Amino acid sequence: MSAIPHDFLHATAQLGKTIARPYPNSRKTHIQGSRPDLRAPLREISQDATPTALGAEANPPIPVYDCSGPYTDPHASIDLLKGLPPVRAAWIEERGDTVLLTGPSSEYGRIRAADPAMAHLRFELIRPPRRALTGTCVTQMHYARRGIVTPEMEYVALRESMRMQQLRDDPRYARLLRQHRGESFGAALPDAFTPEFVRDEIARGRAILPANINHPELEPMIIGRNFRVKINGNLGNSALGSSVVDEVEKMVWSLRWGADTIMDLSTGKHIHETREWLIRNAPTPIGTVPIYQALEKVDGKPEALTWDIFRDTLIEQAEQGVDYFTIHAGVLLRYIPLTADRVTGIVSRGGSILAKWCLAHHQENFLYTHFDEICAIMQAYDVSFSLGDGLRPGSLADANDAAQFAELETLGELTKKAWAHDVQVMIEGPGHVPMQMIKENMDKELTDCFEAPFYTLGPLTTDTAPGYDHITSAIGAAQIGWHGAAMLCYVTPKEHLGLPNKQDVREGIIAYRIAAHAADLAKGHPGAQLRDNALSKARFEFRWEDQFNLGLDPERAREYHDETLPKESAKIAHFCSMCGPHFCSMQMTQEVRDYTLQQGIEEQAALSSDLAAKAEEFLNNGAELYRRASS
Amino acid sequence: MSAIPHDFLHATAQLGKTIARPYPNSRKTHIQGSRPDLRAPLREISQDATPTALGAEANPPIPVYDCSGPYTDPHASIDLLKGLPPVRAAWIEERGDTVLLTGPSSEYGRIRAADPAMAHLRFELIRPPRRALTGTCVTQMHYARRGIVTPEMEYVALRESMRMQQLRDDPRYARLLRQHRGESFGAALPDAFTPEFVRDEIARGRAILPANINHPELEPMIIGRNFRVKINGNLGNSALGSSVVDEVEKMVWSLRWGADTIMDLSTGKHIHETREWLIRNAPTPIGTVPIYQALEKVDGKPEALTWDIFRDTLIEQAEQGVDYFTIHAGVLLRYIPLTADRVTGIVSRGGSILAKWCLAHHQENFLYTHFDEICAIMQAYDVSFSLGDGLRPGSLADANDAAQFAELETLGELTKKAWAHDVQVMIEGPGHVPMQMIKENMDKELTDCFEAPFYTLGPLTTDTAPGYDHITSAIGAAQIGWHGAAMLCYVTPKEHLGLPNKQDVREGIIAYRIAAHAADLAKGHPGAQLRDNALSKARFEFRWEDQFNLGLDPERAREYHDETLPKESAKIAHFCSMCGPHFCSMQMTQEVRDYTLQQGIEEQAALSSDLAAKAEEFLNNGAELYRRASS
Repeated sequence: MSAIPHDFLHATAQLGKTIARPYPNSRKTHIQGSRPDLRAPLREISQDATPTALGAEANPPIPVYDCSGPYTDPHASIDLLKGLPPVRAAWIEERGDTVLLTGPSSEYGRIRAADPAMAHLRFELIRPPRRALTGTCVTQMHYARRGIVTPEMEYVALRESMRMQQLRDDPRYARLLRQHRGESFGAALPDAFTPEFVRDEIARGRAILPANINHPELEPMIIGRNFRVKINGNLGNSALGSSVVDEVEKMVWSLRWGADTIMDLSTGKHIHETREWLIRNAPTPIGTVPIYQALEKVDGKPEALTWDIFRDTLIEQAEQGVDYFTIHAGVLLRYIPLTADRVTGIVSRGGSILAKWCLAHHQENFLYTHFDEICAIMQAYDVSFSLGDGLRPGSLADANDAAQFAELETLGELTKKAWAHDVQVMIEGPGHVPMQMIKENMDKELTDCFEAPFYTLGPLTTDTAPGYDHITSAIGAAQIGWHGAAMLCYVTPKEHLGLPNKQDVREGIIAYRIAAHAADLAKGHPGAQLRDNALSKARFEFRWEDQFNLGLDPERAREYHDETLPKESAKIAHFCSMCGPHFCSMQMTQEVRDYTLQQGIEEQAALSSDLAAKAEEFLNNGAELYRRASS
Repeated sequence: MSAIPHDFLHATAQLGKTIARPYPNSRKTHIQGSRPDLRAPLREISQDATPTALGAEANPPIPVYDCSGPYTDPHASIDLLKGLPPVRAAWIEERGDTVLLTGPSSEYGRIRAADPAMAHLRFELIRPPRRALTGTCVTQMHYARRGIVTPEMEYVALRESMRMQQLRDDPRYARLLRQHRGESFGAALPDAFTPEFVRDEIARGRAILPANINHPELEPMIIGRNFRVKINGNLGNSALGSSVVDEVEKMVWSLRWGADTIMDLSTGKHIHETREWLIRNAPTPIGTVPIYQALEKVDGKPEALTWDIFRDTLIEQAEQGVDYFTIHAGVLLRYIPLTADRVTGIVSRGGSILAKWCLAHHQENFLYTHFDEICAIMQAYDVSFSLGDGLRPGSLADANDAAQFAELETLGELTKKAWAHDVQVMIEGPGHVPMQMIKENMDKELTDCFEAPFYTLGPLTTDTAPGYDHITSAIGAAQIGWHGAAMLCYVTPKEHLGLPNKQDVREGIIAYRIAAHAADLAKGHPGAQLRDNALSKARFEFRWEDQFNLGLDPERAREYHDETLPKESAKIAHFCSMCGPHFCSMQMTQEVRDYTLQQGIEEQAALSSDLAAKAEEFLNNGAELYRRASS
């Protein structure tokens, strides 16, 4: 570790101190599983009591899914130089189907490990890489298909459940848990996420649990349409900017706002080293697009790519612990001419690299021809496929065209192949699609790819708003999430314009948390509406602090509120600056409610006295049921 | 005018200078109608030529709908003290069915006009108010039902058409006009918006043309599901802040970003005076909620409201030129108890005022009981109804409940009543609704309210993101717009938290322009995709300036791009900072396209030479069709 220069050490130590901070008024807690080292994370947001004027009542803590890792745990000590604790290490070890290697088995990995010029940037990993015993498959799908519930599966079940079963028996939550009936388009959302349900979904290929055996720091999570909709945040430096420390900071920042997985899309120098720092400090799955690095190895010339270089890159990254690989194996030679008449041709970077390779050699895509060999590598580390949509549309004009759908069918064919190897698969989707054409994408994916999880980029629903593509795409993402997409890849406001900074990342992540949650609500995910109901109740009762803290971005909400009403006293005021103190509909409604209640009592009283009067009259009149007409 | 203090004059003059500025690289033009004073506005965005390397070609100007009024016309001289030119004055005059009054006929209007304490704030309107001749109806619906095409209707037809017919015959637009088939849920989108089509939609009640005869400054526009989806921007001061000059500035600012109508929701002091400044300087319809001002007149006590005060307020505002009134006549006494068990009770300000009035008096809503009298007033000035949804849900929990739908049915009953008076009607809608319940809102509105235009607030699709409700609601707005909502009321990031500032207004307007345009695309509005296609082509060809200028917010797009690549040279670079100079998929795709083309030629050549060789071989072998086996 001595080789790392002082300023880097200093920057890392500083970052370690500043990035770790709890959420406001929240408690990091864990749900204990069947073994002592199995504890799934959960955040509980505590609430103030309802003010006396509005009917004093204690409000229970609200559980929320937590993908922020130890960074929001005040009891955790964060040391970026050491990485996160390897929570999964014992589970992997105990399965007894892997072997520890003496060092990297990829050629490039060995060169990089020995290169003194890299010493100043290298993460000092003590632990050697691990690989499946020869002829063994170590994927979660493999275990699931053999009926085994792994600790990872149990972890996921606890995490997705969020103690909801327990809450259902707690009268304090009765009103808060009320939820509208969802519309889930054939999905099979269960009442409770049992470990067996998790296992069966993985076995069926309808969900993936991306968990490389070389990523023991991972807090397992699941991607599938019968679970909470997930979101991915991209990061990575390009040739023009950003450093290792910046990328680690951006990753932790993304997790804080709600990223479920992180893709490292670096294309600049030090891809290998950056990735190591990220994975060692990542509690979430890390995905990559290996062709990006392979291309760097051949000086950016697609035609110079070879299967050997690519294969070595896969092994290099698999042994670092990458959890899923985007593989553009569906870009077939014969599909390329289908893009020639498009308005925006091929916009996927991976897709265009492979298209160029295919054309230069006039040969079939080598990822397609070597697909079985790729599966054999994935199988030995449990890397999941994210089958890339290299021919996705880059504009509304090109949506749902022949090139896009031809590739999708091929991805379905490859899904079957991967499944034959027990390798986990998800399918990447568009891109740019007008609203009326979104559902067709989802339906076709379910059919062509046999319900493998769909992982979509947006889609953007209009091309006319550069600077606001987090919004154009959140509109599409919410819809495709509702229709069944299992994970949504975020888009930041800088999309099409430049490299996102920290604030752009936050905007992108929050927009996508909104889209994913809107989808969960629409599908009727069990308990999804709890947080909405709690926040609405807090809003109605002018519990400002609770309203901020229950939101997806408490800091932003507080800042906006304080812009016009900065005083602490305003936080307990029964109004905001939108309407002012003398005119608040919420306050007025409370009066209406009180009035209704009082009216009810008075009416009851009136009714009783009226009945008494009537009764008396009846008796006075001789208690005749029908009085005779006077004439 | 001498009564206006110097600093106010100075501020207004300064504002007049700064708010008027053209859009970048755009030309304000007009489509000439059948009479010299009928000229509908249109913006044309000019484009650079395609760079030579990508196949040099001139790119035609792109027309876009323009609601910014003279403020973006470099040839217009803006004087906020005088107001905008009365473009409709002659049309109204010529109809000969109105009379000029000697002064305001509302009591309050007369008091305010004579109050020396108001002199410093008063807009000096020279022109007296106008009213229909006794017993006459002067609504656009009235004319339409009699088969008359008014200049307003022709104006709207030209404006909605955007010269699309002409463009279809122009080969430069052939590729750019290609558009996907829409899904319009029973809407009857025409190929061309003729004046007769506009008339028929208004006559049928399926569209409204809000155009008070006292608002001659108006550039007419139409709200209906068979036209471009519109958006509304709210403004108005509250007791806690904002001045007249601020509100005028916010209005012009809103128009610049794309607001089609403006609602003045002021609740503070000087409501009357603020409104006058807004209307005189407004090229778009202005809507209000008259009950807000009526409440100010009774010191904020709902129970003190009377029909007389309300009636006087309607006349006061109608004679100022308000184009549509939100009237909460559907909040019936018997519906109020239906809200008592809600999570967020009654959240509409108007709704809660009226609920309180009803309960205090234990009488039916006076807006309901006096509805015919209200119609008689609306009819005399052509003020359109925006029938308010006072019982709209304030949280997902309360969406689509008995209270909301009971009120909607009553709004349908009132629609029929208003139509019997030839008064134009639109219906206000929610609010907070999860995605799977949005379509039910639209379908029910179409049925219960006989296809009167639906004007919705969002809806927000989750309650969990205070600070980002422009996004939670843009997701819902895009969907309900697609399903048939004719106008979408914007929500800013400050919703639920405070009074929006200028930047919040911009964020809200752009988010809603995105939602409305996404809806137009999904419905298949003729020519909607033109701007998307042009921008996508510019993007693919690295015409950065065009990409910025064709967008909804050119300034933001440029600013984001320049954050990482500020040099002018980068504007013609074939890359951006997302990927860097050596790795751009767009550039690579162009190479693929060139290659495909070349391959095509080579293949053609190879095919020919191959055939020639085969032919020669055939001849050399003696030209036998089937050679005999050697043994």
